[in-house]
Amino acid sequence: MFDKFPILRATRDGIKEMEDIVVKEFHLTIILNEHELVTLLCSPEKLDFLAIGFLLSEGLINSKRDIKEMDLDVEGNLVRVATKKPQKFPKDIPSKRLIGSSGGKGASPFAGIDTQSKIDTSIHVSPSEVLDLIDQFVYRSELFESTGGVHGAALCDTKNILVFSEDIGRHNAIDKVFGECLLRDMPTDDRLLVTSGRVSSEILSKAARRRTPLLISKSAPTNLGVQFAHEVGITLIGFVREKRMNIYTHRWRVLSHGN
Amino acid sequence: MFDKFPILRATRDGIKEMEDIVVKEFHLTIILNEHELVTLLCSPEKLDFLAIGFLLSEGLINSKRDIKEMDLDVEGNLVRVATKKPQKFPKDIPSKRLIGSSGGKGASPFAGIDTQSKIDTSIHVSPSEVLDLIDQFVYRSELFESTGGVHGAALCDTKNILVFSEDIGRHNAIDKVFGECLLRDMPTDDRLLVTSGRVSSEILSKAARRRTPLLISKSAPTNLGVQFAHEVGITLIGFVREKRMNIYTHRWRVLSHGN
Repeated sequence: MFDKFPILRATRDGIKEMEDIVVKEFHLTIILNEHELVTLLCSPEKLDFLAIGFLLSEGLINSKRDIKEMDLDVEGNLVRVATKKPQKFPKDIPSKRLIGSSGGKGASPFAGIDTQSKIDTSIHVSPSEVLDLIDQFVYRSELFESTGGVHGAALCDTKNILVFSEDIGRHNAIDKVFGECLLRDMPTDDRLLVTSGRVSSEILSKAARRRTPLLISKSAPTNLGVQFAHEVGITLIGFVREKRMNIYTHRWRVLSHGN
Repeated sequence: MFDKFPILRATRDGIKEMEDIVVKEFHLTIILNEHELVTLLCSPEKLDFLAIGFLLSEGLINSKRDIKEMDLDVEGNLVRVATKKPQKFPKDIPSKRLIGSSGGKGASPFAGIDTQSKIDTSIHVSPSEVLDLIDQFVYRSELFESTGGVHGAALCDTKNILVFSEDIGRHNAIDKVFGECLLRDMPTDDRLLVTSGRVSSEILSKAARRRTPLLISKSAPTNLGVQFAHEVGITLIGFVREKRMNIYTHRWRVLSHGN
């Protein structure tokens, strides 16, 4: 995940030569049914999970059965995925920064998801369980956070981390988690998703597509993230820091102390 | 830049109701020569600068003279830009996470820039000047960082911040700075660009297009960011923290103590 580089370390008092590690950036092109779909900037691990998770997040596949075959070519910076049914090729692919044309023009940014029924899974969690999960999460992320500002994501039950991924992109880290869950036949609709990054409407939409009822972030949500969580039925907990957290939506899943 | 929401603040000891601020997320669709180009997830400030900066970063315009007219419609979530010459419409638009098709297939991620001559501007900076600039930068960013995890970007000379922007996206913050510089006729080729965010190859490419010789980040670069900075002639300084920094490339622009 890292390269070494000779650098200069400078302070107000002087400059000295040393070696430092730098996080790797990889470019992965996804080819869907012989059609070049997108090139992702990512960390070079779990590329198969990333590809499948990306297709899931974009609604291009919905289950493992949709996948006919997958061929990862790391040397060639590409992965080929074939689906059983011919996939309608999207005009544009939304991303962290971009929304497909259909989402523009003042339309809902949640196009393609808002027709789903509201998530009403009655899983519950206590503040102490959330803080304990974040402790585990920070422990797993520690090296990467300190050296490269890498983002982490995890699928959890109320006690333990079940799947963990990291990536230079917060979107990719989540896609890797959901991709791994799909390929390993792990359900996501009664679990908690933990992310280190900010929760925008797009991050929310990833959890909504997988019908994950609880989304927990170390960082802040945006207003549209909060609004979307409210609409789709996701309990959104943000700014989990040290001993506290903010509960933004669907607070009924959070048991208060003593319950 | 913020909305207020009722939230629950939870700790191990209990839960209480309160109100908290949440950063706004805005969706801006750029229409270039009557063609829908892209929708950006951004903060709802300086949208004209963002649109122009985005077009600059994508190489769709290169100077103020290329712009025939611009019409910002905030209510409609869109901005219309017309160029003097008919613009060849790109098949794909690179983003924080995506690279256009032409950049995939193992080709250089820096397509369209690598033919430029090396940046050799002989501006110099001392470690103390960098630390003082970052102090100013952090002071300007303080509210936003603490409340919303918003990214900042600034164009500076060796002593002062000249232009400052913030946005929920680190790419947008930089595009806003360069867009403002273009519209205000401020040169960028003998300045320093400061960013709060990680320096990937894409961030480097923005500075390279504007021929800004020094790029300073509070965060880490990626290996391709370092490699690209080396190739195009940009002095890359990262991990500026408290009293120290890492100089990754073209160290000759950094004057050691006493010079």
